[in-house]
Amino acid sequence: MTVEAYMARLAGMVERELDGVLPAGWDVPARLREAMMYSLKAGGKRVRPVLVLAAAEAVRGDGSASEAAMPAACAVELVHTYSLIHDDLPAMDNDDFRRGKPTNHRVFGEAMAILAGDALLTHAFHLIAEAALSGRLSADAALAITADLARLAGASGMVGGQAADILGEQGVTTLEELRYIHLHKTADLIVFSLTAGGRAAGASAGQIEALAEFGRRLGLAFQIRDDMLDVIGDERRLGKKTGSDERSRKVTWPYLAGLEASRDEVERLTREAKEMLREAGLRKPDLLIGIADYLMRRDR
Amino acid sequence: MTVEAYMARLAGMVERELDGVLPAGWDVPARLREAMMYSLKAGGKRVRPVLVLAAAEAVRGDGSASEAAMPAACAVELVHTYSLIHDDLPAMDNDDFRRGKPTNHRVFGEAMAILAGDALLTHAFHLIAEAALSGRLSADAALAITADLARLAGASGMVGGQAADILGEQGVTTLEELRYIHLHKTADLIVFSLTAGGRAAGASAGQIEALAEFGRRLGLAFQIRDDMLDVIGDERRLGKKTGSDERSRKVTWPYLAGLEASRDEVERLTREAKEMLREAGLRKPDLLIGIADYLMRRDR
Repeated sequence: MTVEAYMARLAGMVERELDGVLPAGWDVPARLREAMMYSLKAGGKRVRPVLVLAAAEAVRGDGSASEAAMPAACAVELVHTYSLIHDDLPAMDNDDFRRGKPTNHRVFGEAMAILAGDALLTHAFHLIAEAALSGRLSADAALAITADLARLAGASGMVGGQAADILGEQGVTTLEELRYIHLHKTADLIVFSLTAGGRAAGASAGQIEALAEFGRRLGLAFQIRDDMLDVIGDERRLGKKTGSDERSRKVTWPYLAGLEASRDEVERLTREAKEMLREAGLRKPDLLIGIADYLMRRDR
Repeated sequence: MTVEAYMARLAGMVERELDGVLPAGWDVPARLREAMMYSLKAGGKRVRPVLVLAAAEAVRGDGSASEAAMPAACAVELVHTYSLIHDDLPAMDNDDFRRGKPTNHRVFGEAMAILAGDALLTHAFHLIAEAALSGRLSADAALAITADLARLAGASGMVGGQAADILGEQGVTTLEELRYIHLHKTADLIVFSLTAGGRAAGASAGQIEALAEFGRRLGLAFQIRDDMLDVIGDERRLGKKTGSDERSRKVTWPYLAGLEASRDEVERLTREAKEMLREAGLRKPDLLIGIADYLMRRDR
Protein backbone atom coordinates (compact mmCIF):
# COMPACT_ATOMS: atom_id res chain seq x y z
CA MET A 1 0.00 0.00 0.00
CA THR A 2 1.30 3.48 -0.83
CA VAL A 3 1.50 6.08 1.92
CA GLU A 4 -1.12 8.14 0.12
CA ALA A 5 -3.54 5.23 0.01
CA TYR A 6 -2.87 4.43 3.67
CA MET A 7 -3.52 8.03 4.71
CA ALA A 8 -6.67 8.15 2.57
CA ARG A 9 -7.98 4.98 4.23
CA LEU A 10 -7.42 6.37 7.74
CA ALA A 11 -8.87 9.76 6.75
CA GLY A 12 -11.98 7.98 5.45
CA MET A 13 -12.44 6.21 8.78
CA VAL A 14 -12.16 9.56 10.60
CA GLU A 15 -14.56 11.24 8.18
CA ARG A 16 -17.30 8.68 8.90
CA GLU A 17 -16.78 8.97 12.65
CA LEU A 18 -16.97 12.77 12.55
CA ASP A 19 -20.45 12.58 10.99
CA GLY A 20 -21.81 11.20 14.25
CA VAL A 21 -19.52 13.03 16.64
CA LEU A 22 -22.35 15.03 18.21
CA PRO A 23 -24.78 12.58 19.86
CA ALA A 24 -28.06 12.63 17.93
CA GLY A 25 -30.01 12.63 21.19
CA TRP A 26 -28.37 15.80 22.50
CA ASP A 27 -30.62 18.84 22.71
CA VAL A 28 -28.40 21.29 20.79
CA PRO A 29 -29.87 24.43 19.16
CA ALA A 30 -30.10 23.55 15.44
CA ARG A 31 -28.16 26.60 14.27
CA LEU A 32 -25.31 25.89 16.71
CA ARG A 33 -25.11 22.26 15.57
CA GLU A 34 -25.06 23.48 11.97
CA ALA A 35 -22.26 25.98 12.65
CA MET A 36 -20.16 23.29 14.38
CA MET A 37 -20.63 20.75 11.59
CA TYR A 38 -20.10 23.34 8.83
CA SER A 39 -16.47 23.84 9.80
CA LEU A 40 -15.87 20.30 11.01
CA LYS A 41 -16.96 18.85 7.67
CA ALA A 42 -15.34 21.53 5.50
CA GLY A 43 -12.73 19.12 4.20
CA GLY A 44 -9.08 19.40 5.00
CA LYS A 45 -6.48 16.67 4.96
CA ARG A 46 -7.23 15.29 8.46
CA VAL A 47 -3.48 15.14 9.07
CA ARG A 48 -3.78 15.15 12.86
CA PRO A 49 -6.36 12.36 13.28
CA VAL A 50 -4.50 10.30 10.65
CA LEU A 51 -1.36 10.67 12.78
CA VAL A 52 -3.27 9.47 15.87
CA LEU A 53 -4.39 6.30 14.11
CA ALA A 54 -1.02 5.76 12.39
CA ALA A 55 0.86 6.11 15.70
CA ALA A 56 -1.43 3.55 17.32
CA GLU A 57 -0.77 1.16 14.44
CA ALA A 58 2.99 1.76 14.57
CA VAL A 59 3.03 0.80 18.25
CA ARG A 60 0.73 -2.20 18.00
CA GLY A 61 1.90 -3.50 14.63
CA ASP A 62 -1.67 -3.68 13.32
CA GLY A 63 -4.99 -1.83 13.41
CA SER A 64 -6.19 -3.46 16.62
CA ALA A 65 -5.97 -0.19 18.60
CA SER A 66 -7.90 1.92 16.06
CA GLU A 67 -11.12 1.58 18.04
CA ALA A 68 -9.39 2.84 21.20
CA ALA A 69 -7.55 5.61 19.33
CA MET A 70 -10.51 6.96 17.34
CA PRO A 71 -11.98 9.21 20.07
CA ALA A 72 -8.63 11.03 20.43
CA ALA A 73 -8.41 11.23 16.63
CA CYS A 74 -11.78 12.98 16.47
CA ALA A 75 -10.92 15.10 19.50
CA VAL A 76 -7.81 16.57 17.91
CA GLU A 77 -9.74 17.38 14.73
CA LEU A 78 -12.39 19.16 16.84
CA VAL A 79 -9.68 21.18 18.59
CA HIS A 80 -7.95 21.99 15.30
CA THR A 81 -11.29 23.07 13.79
CA TYR A 82 -12.19 25.30 16.76
CA SER A 83 -8.77 26.96 16.51
CA LEU A 84 -9.34 27.73 12.81
CA ILE A 85 -12.80 29.22 13.50
CA HIS A 86 -11.45 31.49 16.24
CA ASP A 87 -8.29 32.39 14.22
CA ASP A 88 -10.43 33.50 11.29
CA LEU A 89 -12.51 35.94 13.39
CA PRO A 90 -12.35 39.66 12.55
CA ALA A 91 -10.54 40.34 15.83
CA MET A 92 -7.87 37.79 14.90
CA ASP A 93 -6.80 37.16 11.28
CA ASN A 94 -10.06 38.47 9.79
CA ASP A 95 -10.27 35.88 7.02
CA ASP A 96 -13.32 35.63 4.78
CA PHE A 97 -12.47 32.31 3.15
CA ARG A 98 -10.91 29.03 4.17
CA ARG A 99 -10.44 26.08 1.84
CA GLY A 100 -12.45 27.99 -0.73
CA LYS A 101 -15.52 28.31 1.49
CA PRO A 102 -16.74 31.35 3.44
CA THR A 103 -15.39 31.25 7.01
CA ASN A 104 -17.68 30.31 9.87
CA HIS A 105 -18.40 33.86 11.04
CA ARG A 106 -19.19 34.94 7.47
CA VAL A 107 -21.96 32.35 7.34
CA PHE A 108 -23.23 32.23 10.94
CA GLY A 109 -22.15 35.59 12.35
CA GLU A 110 -19.39 36.34 14.82
CA ALA A 111 -21.30 35.43 17.98
CA MET A 112 -22.29 32.00 16.69
CA ALA A 113 -18.76 31.38 15.37
CA ILE A 114 -17.27 32.09 18.80
CA LEU A 115 -19.80 29.73 20.40
CA ALA A 116 -19.31 27.02 17.76
CA GLY A 117 -15.57 27.13 18.50
CA ASP A 118 -16.16 27.01 22.25
CA ALA A 119 -18.51 24.05 21.84
CA LEU A 120 -16.11 22.09 19.59
CA LEU A 121 -13.27 22.56 22.08
CA THR A 122 -15.48 21.47 24.97
CA HIS A 123 -16.78 18.44 23.09
CA ALA A 124 -13.26 17.17 22.37
CA PHE A 125 -12.89 16.43 26.08
CA HIS A 126 -16.26 14.69 26.16
CA LEU A 127 -15.19 12.24 23.46
CA ILE A 128 -12.17 11.07 25.44
CA ALA A 129 -13.89 10.79 28.83
CA GLU A 130 -16.86 9.03 27.27
CA ALA A 131 -14.56 6.54 25.54
CA ALA A 132 -13.21 5.54 28.94
CA LEU A 133 -16.63 5.43 30.62
CA SER A 134 -17.93 3.14 27.86
CA GLY A 135 -14.89 0.86 28.11
CA ARG A 136 -13.50 1.68 24.66
CA LEU A 137 -10.31 3.15 26.14
CA SER A 138 -8.58 2.42 29.46
CA ALA A 139 -9.08 4.93 32.27
CA ASP A 140 -5.33 5.51 32.61
CA ALA A 141 -4.90 6.22 28.91
CA ALA A 142 -7.95 8.52 28.85
CA LEU A 143 -6.68 10.57 31.79
CA ALA A 144 -3.18 10.92 30.32
CA ILE A 145 -4.64 11.85 26.92
CA THR A 146 -6.93 14.43 28.56
CA ALA A 147 -4.06 16.02 30.49
CA ASP A 148 -1.89 16.05 27.34
CA LEU A 149 -4.62 17.63 25.23
CA ALA A 150 -5.32 20.36 27.79
CA ARG A 151 -1.60 21.14 28.14
CA LEU A 152 -0.75 21.02 24.43
CA ALA A 153 -3.87 22.89 23.25
CA GLY A 154 -3.94 25.42 26.11
CA ALA A 155 -2.05 28.39 27.54
CA SER A 156 1.34 26.69 27.36
CA GLY A 157 0.53 25.04 24.02
CA MET A 158 -1.48 25.99 20.96
CA VAL A 159 -3.28 28.99 22.50
CA GLY A 160 0.06 30.20 23.91
CA GLY A 161 1.58 29.99 20.43
CA GLN A 162 -1.33 31.90 18.95
CA ALA A 163 -1.02 34.56 21.67
CA ALA A 164 2.73 34.89 21.02
CA ASP A 165 1.98 35.22 17.31
CA ILE A 166 -0.49 38.04 17.92
CA LEU A 167 1.72 39.77 20.48
CA GLY A 168 4.72 39.53 18.18
CA GLU A 169 3.05 40.72 15.02
CA GLN A 170 5.66 42.55 12.97
CA GLY A 171 7.90 42.43 16.03
CA VAL A 172 9.24 38.89 15.50
CA THR A 173 12.82 39.28 14.33
CA THR A 174 14.62 36.09 15.32
CA LEU A 175 14.25 32.45 14.39
CA GLU A 176 14.16 31.70 18.12
CA GLU A 177 10.93 33.68 18.55
CA LEU A 178 9.45 32.19 15.40
CA ARG A 179 10.43 28.69 16.56
CA TYR A 180 8.42 29.27 19.78
CA ILE A 181 5.36 30.29 17.77
CA HIS A 182 5.63 27.41 15.28
CA LEU A 183 6.35 24.86 18.01
CA HIS A 184 3.30 25.80 20.02
CA LYS A 185 0.85 27.03 17.40
CA THR A 186 1.46 24.07 15.09
CA ALA A 187 3.71 21.37 16.50
CA ASP A 188 1.98 20.90 19.86
CA LEU A 189 -1.19 19.41 18.32
CA ILE A 190 1.00 17.14 16.16
CA VAL A 191 2.81 16.01 19.31
CA PHE A 192 -0.56 15.38 20.93
CA SER A 193 -1.72 13.32 17.96
CA LEU A 194 1.28 11.02 18.07
CA THR A 195 1.38 10.50 21.84
CA ALA A 196 -2.40 10.05 22.05
CA GLY A 197 -2.23 7.30 19.43
CA GLY A 198 0.64 5.76 21.33
CA ARG A 199 -1.18 5.90 24.66
CA ALA A 200 -4.34 4.37 23.18
CA ALA A 201 -2.20 1.50 21.87
CA GLY A 202 -0.48 0.94 25.22
CA ALA A 203 2.95 2.31 24.30
CA SER A 204 5.73 2.35 26.93
CA ALA A 205 6.89 5.62 28.50
CA GLY A 206 10.00 5.53 26.32
CA GLN A 207 7.94 5.07 23.18
CA ILE A 208 5.66 7.96 24.17
CA GLU A 209 8.72 10.17 24.62
CA ALA A 210 10.09 9.11 21.21
CA LEU A 211 6.73 9.80 19.57
CA ALA A 212 6.68 13.26 21.21
CA GLU A 213 10.18 14.09 19.95
CA PHE A 214 9.25 12.79 16.50
CA GLY A 215 6.15 15.00 16.63
CA ARG A 216 8.03 18.10 17.71
CA ARG A 217 10.37 17.86 14.71
CA LEU A 218 7.65 16.78 12.32
CA GLY A 219 5.37 19.62 13.45
CA LEU A 220 8.07 22.25 13.11
CA ALA A 221 9.10 20.92 9.68
CA PHE A 222 5.42 20.82 8.66
CA GLN A 223 4.98 24.52 9.48
CA ILE A 224 8.23 25.57 7.79
CA ARG A 225 7.10 23.62 4.70
CA ASP A 226 3.79 25.48 4.95
CA ASP A 227 5.64 28.81 5.04
CA MET A 228 7.67 27.73 2.00
CA LEU A 229 4.62 26.68 -0.01
CA ASP A 230 3.20 30.16 0.44
CA VAL A 231 6.26 31.40 -1.48
CA ILE A 232 6.99 28.63 -4.01
CA GLY A 233 3.72 26.70 -4.18
CA ASP A 234 1.52 26.18 -7.24
CA GLU A 235 -1.76 28.00 -6.68
CA ARG A 236 -3.73 25.36 -8.58
CA ARG A 237 -2.27 22.54 -6.49
CA LEU A 238 -2.70 24.47 -3.23
CA GLY A 239 -6.22 25.59 -4.06
CA LYS A 240 -5.42 29.03 -2.63
CA LYS A 241 -3.44 32.10 -3.53
CA THR A 242 0.27 32.15 -2.67
CA GLY A 243 2.07 35.18 -1.34
CA SER A 244 -0.53 35.78 1.37
CA ASP A 245 2.12 35.83 4.12
CA GLU A 246 4.05 38.54 2.29
CA ARG A 247 0.91 40.57 1.66
CA SER A 248 -0.08 40.39 5.32
CA ARG A 249 3.55 41.06 6.32
CA LYS A 250 3.66 37.81 8.24
CA VAL A 251 7.09 36.87 9.50
CA THR A 252 7.90 33.37 8.22
CA TRP A 253 10.83 30.98 8.19
CA PRO A 254 11.78 31.76 4.55
CA TYR A 255 11.50 35.49 5.33
CA LEU A 256 13.97 35.25 8.22
CA ALA A 257 16.28 32.47 7.03
CA GLY A 258 15.81 32.37 3.28
CA LEU A 259 14.32 29.62 1.12
CA GLU A 260 17.49 27.55 0.84
CA ALA A 261 18.06 27.41 4.60
CA SER A 262 14.36 26.65 5.12
CA ARG A 263 14.63 23.65 2.80
CA ASP A 264 17.72 22.45 4.68
CA GLU A 265 15.96 22.85 8.04
CA VAL A 266 12.95 20.83 6.89
CA GLU A 267 15.28 18.08 5.71
CA ARG A 268 17.34 18.10 8.88
CA LEU A 269 14.26 17.98 11.12
CA THR A 270 12.68 15.21 9.06
CA ARG A 271 15.88 13.14 9.13
CA GLU A 272 16.21 13.54 12.90
CA ALA A 273 12.52 12.74 13.41
CA LYS A 274 12.79 9.53 11.40
CA GLU A 275 15.93 8.42 13.25
CA MET A 276 14.27 8.87 16.63
CA LEU A 277 11.31 6.84 15.54
CA ARG A 278 13.43 4.01 14.14
CA GLU A 279 15.18 3.67 17.49
CA ALA A 280 11.96 3.65 19.56
CA GLY A 281 11.32 -0.08 19.27
CA LEU A 282 7.92 0.28 17.59
CA ARG A 283 6.50 -2.85 15.99
CA LYS A 284 5.81 -1.25 12.62
CA PRO A 285 7.18 2.30 12.27
CA ASP A 286 7.40 2.26 8.45
CA LEU A 287 4.06 3.80 7.52
CA LEU A 288 4.49 6.55 10.11
CA ILE A 289 7.93 7.29 8.68
CA GLY A 290 6.38 7.26 5.23
CA ILE A 291 3.84 9.88 6.37
CA ALA A 292 6.68 12.10 7.62
CA ASP A 293 8.39 11.87 4.22
CA TYR A 294 5.12 12.50 2.43
CA LEU A 295 4.27 15.59 4.50
CA MET A 296 7.71 17.08 3.94
CA ARG A 297 7.56 16.65 0.17
CA ARG A 298 3.93 17.69 -0.22
CA ASP A 299 3.11 20.47 -2.64
CA ARG A 300 -0.24 21.35 -1.12
CA MET B 1 -21.53 28.85 62.02
CA THR B 2 -23.80 31.02 59.90
CA VAL B 3 -24.32 30.16 56.23
CA GLU B 4 -22.57 33.39 55.25
CA ALA B 5 -19.51 32.55 57.34
CA TYR B 6 -19.46 29.00 55.94
CA MET B 7 -19.65 30.27 52.36
CA ALA B 8 -16.94 32.86 53.06
CA ARG B 9 -14.65 30.18 54.47
CA LEU B 10 -15.07 27.96 51.40
CA ALA B 11 -14.70 30.93 49.04
CA GLY B 12 -11.44 31.83 50.80
CA MET B 13 -10.08 28.33 50.24
CA VAL B 14 -10.98 28.58 46.55
CA GLU B 15 -9.45 32.05 46.26
CA ARG B 16 -6.08 30.81 47.53
CA GLU B 17 -6.14 27.82 45.20
CA LEU B 18 -6.97 29.99 42.18
CA ASP B 19 -3.79 32.03 42.75
CA GLY B 20 -1.69 29.03 41.80
CA VAL B 21 -4.04 27.50 39.27
CA LEU B 22 -1.64 28.03 36.35
CA PRO B 23 1.54 26.03 37.04
CA ALA B 24 4.42 28.46 37.66
CA GLY B 25 6.72 26.33 35.52
CA TRP B 26 4.51 26.55 32.43
CA ASP B 27 5.89 28.61 29.57
CA VAL B 28 2.87 30.88 29.01
CA PRO B 29 3.24 34.24 27.23
CA ALA B 30 3.18 36.82 30.05
CA ARG B 31 0.38 38.89 28.54
CA LEU B 32 -1.85 35.83 28.09
CA ARG B 33 -1.24 34.75 31.68
CA GLU B 34 -2.09 38.28 32.80
CA ALA B 35 -5.32 38.33 30.78
CA MET B 36 -6.39 34.97 32.21
CA MET B 37 -5.66 35.97 35.81
CA TYR B 38 -7.22 39.45 35.40
CA SER B 39 -10.69 37.99 34.93
CA LEU B 40 -10.18 34.97 37.16
CA LYS B 41 -9.21 37.17 40.11
CA ALA B 42 -11.76 39.91 39.42
CA GLY B 43 -13.80 39.00 42.47
CA GLY B 44 -17.26 37.56 42.30
CA LYS B 45 -19.03 35.46 44.86
CA ARG B 46 -17.49 32.11 43.82
CA VAL B 47 -20.95 30.56 44.12
CA ARG B 48 -20.15 27.58 41.88
CA PRO B 49 -16.91 26.42 43.54
CA VAL B 50 -18.50 26.95 46.95
CA LEU B 51 -21.31 24.63 45.86
CA VAL B 52 -18.77 22.00 44.77
CA LEU B 53 -17.11 22.01 48.19
CA ALA B 54 -20.41 22.23 50.07
CA ALA B 55 -21.85 19.28 48.13
CA ALA B 56 -18.77 17.18 48.94
CA GLU B 57 -19.17 18.06 52.61
CA ALA B 58 -22.90 17.30 52.57
CA VAL B 59 -22.20 13.82 51.22
CA ARG B 60 -19.27 13.02 53.45
CA GLY B 61 -20.50 14.73 56.62
CA ASP B 62 -17.21 16.60 57.04
CA GLY B 63 -14.51 18.38 55.03
CA SER B 64 -12.49 15.24 54.31
CA ALA B 65 -13.28 15.34 50.60
CA SER B 66 -12.35 19.01 50.10
CA GLU B 67 -8.91 18.08 48.79
CA ALA B 68 -10.46 15.76 46.19
CA ALA B 69 -13.21 18.26 45.29
CA MET B 70 -10.99 21.34 44.97
CA PRO B 71 -9.79 20.73 41.36
CA ALA B 72 -13.42 20.55 40.15
CA ALA B 73 -14.20 23.66 42.23
CA CYS B 74 -11.45 25.60 40.47
CA ALA B 75 -12.41 24.07 37.11
CA VAL B 76 -15.99 25.33 37.28
CA GLU B 77 -14.79 28.82 38.19
CA LEU B 78 -12.43 28.78 35.17
CA VAL B 79 -15.30 27.73 32.92
CA HIS B 80 -17.62 30.37 34.42
CA THR B 81 -14.91 33.03 33.95
CA TYR B 82 -14.23 32.06 30.32
CA SER B 83 -17.96 32.26 29.60
CA LEU B 84 -18.12 35.79 31.03
CA ILE B 85 -15.10 36.93 28.97
CA HIS B 86 -16.62 35.61 25.74
CA ASP B 87 -20.13 36.87 26.61
CA ASP B 88 -18.77 40.39 27.14
CA LEU B 89 -17.15 40.54 23.66
CA PRO B 90 -18.38 43.17 21.19
CA ALA B 91 -19.83 40.42 18.97
CA MET B 92 -21.85 39.11 21.94
CA ASP B 93 -23.19 41.41 24.70
CA ASN B 94 -20.63 44.16 24.04
CA ASP B 95 -20.12 45.05 27.70
CA ASP B 96 -17.44 47.50 28.80
CA PHE B 97 -17.62 46.82 32.51
CA ARG B 98 -18.12 43.84 34.77
CA ARG B 99 -18.12 44.00 38.55
CA GLY B 100 -17.05 47.62 38.23
CA LYS B 101 -13.88 46.82 36.28
CA PRO B 102 -13.25 47.18 32.54
CA THR B 103 -14.04 43.92 30.75
CA ASN B 104 -11.20 41.70 29.52
CA HIS B 105 -11.29 42.84 25.89
CA ARG B 106 -11.31 46.49 26.98
CA VAL B 107 -7.99 45.93 28.76
CA PHE B 108 -6.27 43.31 26.61
CA GLY B 109 -7.98 43.70 23.24
CA GLU B 110 -10.47 41.39 21.58
CA ALA B 111 -7.98 38.86 20.22
CA MET B 112 -6.32 38.31 23.58
CA ALA B 113 -9.72 38.13 25.33
CA ILE B 114 -10.86 35.38 22.99
CA LEU B 115 -7.61 33.48 23.61
CA ALA B 116 -7.73 34.01 27.39
CA GLY B 117 -11.23 32.52 27.39
CA ASP B 118 -10.13 29.58 25.23
CA ALA B 119 -7.16 28.94 27.53
CA LEU B 120 -9.26 29.09 30.73
CA LEU B 121 -11.76 26.60 29.31
CA THR B 122 -8.98 24.25 28.20
CA HIS B 123 -7.20 24.49 31.54
CA ALA B 124 -10.33 23.49 33.46
CA PHE B 125 -9.98 20.00 31.97
CA HIS B 126 -6.31 19.88 32.87
CA LEU B 127 -7.06 20.46 36.54
CA ILE B 128 -9.38 17.46 36.74
CA ALA B 129 -7.20 15.04 34.77
CA GLU B 130 -4.10 16.12 36.68
CA ALA B 131 -5.90 15.58 40.00
CA ALA B 132 -6.46 11.96 39.02
CA LEU B 133 -2.93 11.45 37.66
CA SER B 134 -1.48 12.76 40.93
CA GLY B 135 -3.75 10.56 43.04
CA ARG B 136 -5.76 13.41 44.55
CA LEU B 137 -9.00 12.17 42.96
CA SER B 138 -10.01 8.68 41.86
CA ALA B 139 -9.80 7.88 38.15
CA ASP B 140 -13.49 6.94 38.00
CA ALA B 141 -14.59 10.20 39.62
CA ALA B 142 -12.28 12.27 37.39
CA LEU B 143 -13.63 10.67 34.21
CA ALA B 144 -17.26 11.12 35.26
CA ILE B 145 -16.57 14.73 36.28
CA THR B 146 -14.83 15.40 32.94
CA ALA B 147 -17.72 13.95 30.94
CA ASP B 148 -20.22 15.94 33.03
CA LEU B 149 -18.32 19.19 32.61
CA ALA B 150 -18.01 18.77 28.84
CA ARG B 151 -21.71 17.94 28.52
CA LEU B 152 -23.01 20.63 30.87
CA ALA B 153 -20.68 23.39 29.62
CA GLY B 154 -20.86 22.47 25.93
CA ALA B 155 -23.25 22.41 22.98
CA SER B 156 -26.07 20.77 24.91
CA GLY B 157 -25.33 22.79 28.05
CA MET B 158 -24.07 26.29 28.79
CA VAL B 159 -22.93 27.11 25.24
CA GLY B 160 -26.23 25.76 23.92
CA GLY B 161 -28.10 28.06 26.31
CA GLN B 162 -26.03 31.02 25.22
CA ALA B 163 -26.64 30.16 21.55
CA ALA B 164 -30.40 29.90 22.18
CA ASP B 165 -30.27 33.26 23.95
CA ILE B 166 -28.55 34.92 20.98
CA LEU B 167 -30.77 33.21 18.42
CA GLY B 168 -33.88 34.15 20.35
CA GLU B 169 -33.02 37.77 21.00
CA GLN B 170 -36.29 39.72 21.07
CA GLY B 171 -37.96 36.61 19.70
CA VAL B 172 -38.42 34.79 23.03
CA THR B 173 -42.09 35.02 23.87
CA THR B 174 -42.85 32.05 26.12
CA LEU B 175 -41.69 30.93 29.55
CA GLU B 176 -40.91 27.57 27.97
CA GLU B 177 -38.27 29.11 25.70
CA LEU B 178 -36.89 31.24 28.52
CA ARG B 179 -36.76 28.18 30.78
CA TYR B 180 -34.55 26.42 28.17
CA ILE B 181 -32.16 29.37 28.11
CA HIS B 182 -32.01 29.76 31.91
CA LEU B 183 -31.66 26.01 32.47
CA HIS B 184 -28.71 25.70 30.14
CA LYS B 185 -27.05 29.09 30.34
CA THR B 186 -27.17 29.21 34.13
CA ALA B 187 -28.43 26.05 35.79
CA ASP B 188 -26.20 23.55 33.99
CA LEU B 189 -23.01 24.80 35.65
CA ILE B 190 -24.79 24.75 39.02
CA VAL B 191 -25.80 21.15 38.35
CA PHE B 192 -22.20 20.38 37.45
CA SER B 193 -20.96 21.98 40.67
CA LEU B 194 -23.22 19.88 42.88
CA THR B 195 -22.66 16.55 41.12
CA ALA B 196 -18.89 17.11 40.84
CA GLY B 197 -18.69 17.71 44.59
CA GLY B 198 -20.79 14.61 45.13
CA ARG B 199 -18.63 12.48 42.84
CA ALA B 200 -15.43 13.67 44.50
CA ALA B 201 -16.90 12.64 47.85
CA GLY B 202 -17.94 9.19 46.60
CA ALA B 203 -21.71 9.76 46.51
CA SER B 204 -24.02 6.97 45.32
CA ALA B 205 -25.75 7.13 41.93
CA GLY B 206 -29.01 8.04 43.70
CA GLN B 207 -27.34 10.86 45.60
CA ILE B 208 -25.77 12.21 42.38
CA GLU B 209 -29.22 12.22 40.79
CA ALA B 210 -30.71 14.05 43.79
CA LEU B 211 -27.90 16.62 43.72
CA ALA B 212 -28.53 17.15 39.99
CA GLU B 213 -32.26 17.70 40.54
CA PHE B 214 -31.51 20.03 43.44
CA GLY B 215 -29.09 21.91 41.15
CA ARG B 216 -31.56 22.21 38.30
CA ARG B 217 -34.13 23.87 40.56
CA LEU B 218 -31.58 25.94 42.44
CA GLY B 219 -29.99 27.14 39.19
CA LEU B 220 -33.29 28.12 37.64
CA ALA B 221 -34.39 29.89 40.83
CA PHE B 222 -30.99 31.63 41.00
CA GLN B 223 -31.43 33.05 37.49
CA ILE B 224 -35.03 34.13 38.07
CA ARG B 225 -33.87 35.86 41.26
CA ASP B 226 -31.15 37.53 39.18
CA ASP B 227 -33.76 38.74 36.69
CA MET B 228 -35.84 40.08 39.61
CA LEU B 229 -32.92 41.93 41.18
CA ASP B 230 -32.40 43.80 37.93
CA VAL B 231 -35.90 45.21 38.47
CA ILE B 232 -36.21 45.59 42.24
CA GLY B 233 -32.60 45.54 43.45
CA ASP B 234 -30.76 48.27 45.33
CA GLU B 235 -28.02 49.65 43.07
CA ARG B 236 -25.71 50.28 46.03
CA ARG B 237 -26.09 46.71 47.30
CA LEU B 238 -25.77 45.23 43.82
CA GLY B 239 -22.79 47.39 42.87
CA LYS B 240 -24.28 47.88 39.41
CA LYS B 241 -27.10 49.74 37.74
CA THR B 242 -30.53 48.11 37.72
CA GLY B 243 -32.89 48.22 34.76
CA SER B 244 -30.19 47.04 32.35
CA ASP B 245 -32.37 44.16 31.10
CA GLU B 246 -35.16 46.56 30.24
CA ARG B 247 -32.78 48.99 28.53
CA SER B 248 -31.28 46.19 26.42
CA ARG B 249 -34.80 44.80 25.82
CA LYS B 250 -33.80 41.51 27.33
CA VAL B 251 -36.66 39.09 27.84
CA THR B 252 -36.69 38.05 31.50
CA TRP B 253 -38.88 36.03 33.85
CA PRO B 254 -40.48 39.13 35.44
CA TYR B 255 -41.06 40.56 31.95
CA LEU B 256 -42.97 37.48 30.81
CA ALA B 257 -44.60 36.35 34.05
CA GLY B 258 -44.66 39.44 36.23
CA LEU B 259 -42.82 40.09 39.50
CA GLU B 260 -45.33 38.38 41.75
CA ALA B 261 -45.34 35.13 39.77
CA SER B 262 -41.53 35.27 39.58
CA ARG B 263 -41.31 35.46 43.36
CA ASP B 264 -43.71 32.50 43.66
CA GLU B 265 -41.68 30.49 41.16
CA VAL B 266 -38.43 31.10 43.05
CA GLU B 267 -40.10 29.98 46.26
CA ARG B 268 -41.65 26.91 44.69
CA LEU B 269 -38.36 25.84 43.07
CA THR B 270 -36.41 26.41 46.28
CA ARG B 271 -38.92 24.44 48.32
CA GLU B 272 -38.83 21.53 45.88
CA ALA B 273 -35.03 21.64 45.72
CA LYS B 274 -34.73 21.47 49.49
CA GLU B 275 -37.19 18.58 49.75
CA MET B 276 -35.26 16.52 47.20
CA LEU B 277 -32.05 17.10 49.07
CA ARG B 278 -33.53 16.14 52.44
CA GLU B 279 -34.67 12.82 51.01
CA ALA B 280 -31.31 11.98 49.40
CA GLY B 281 -29.75 10.37 52.47
CA LEU B 282 -26.84 12.81 52.68
CA ARG B 283 -24.88 12.77 55.93
CA LYS B 284 -25.08 16.53 56.49
CA PRO B 285 -27.36 18.36 54.04
CA ASP B 286 -28.08 21.34 56.31
CA LEU B 287 -25.40 23.77 55.16
CA LEU B 288 -26.19 23.06 51.50
CA ILE B 289 -29.85 23.72 52.21
CA GLY B 290 -28.83 26.89 54.03
CA ILE B 291 -26.94 28.02 50.92
CA ALA B 292 -30.05 27.45 48.79
CA ASP B 293 -32.08 29.64 51.18
CA TYR B 294 -29.37 32.26 51.25
CA LEU B 295 -29.09 32.47 47.45
CA MET B 296 -32.83 32.82 47.06
CA ARG B 297 -33.08 35.67 49.55
CA ARG B 298 -29.94 37.48 48.43
CA ASP B 299 -30.22 41.14 47.50
CA ARG B 300 -27.03 41.22 45.42
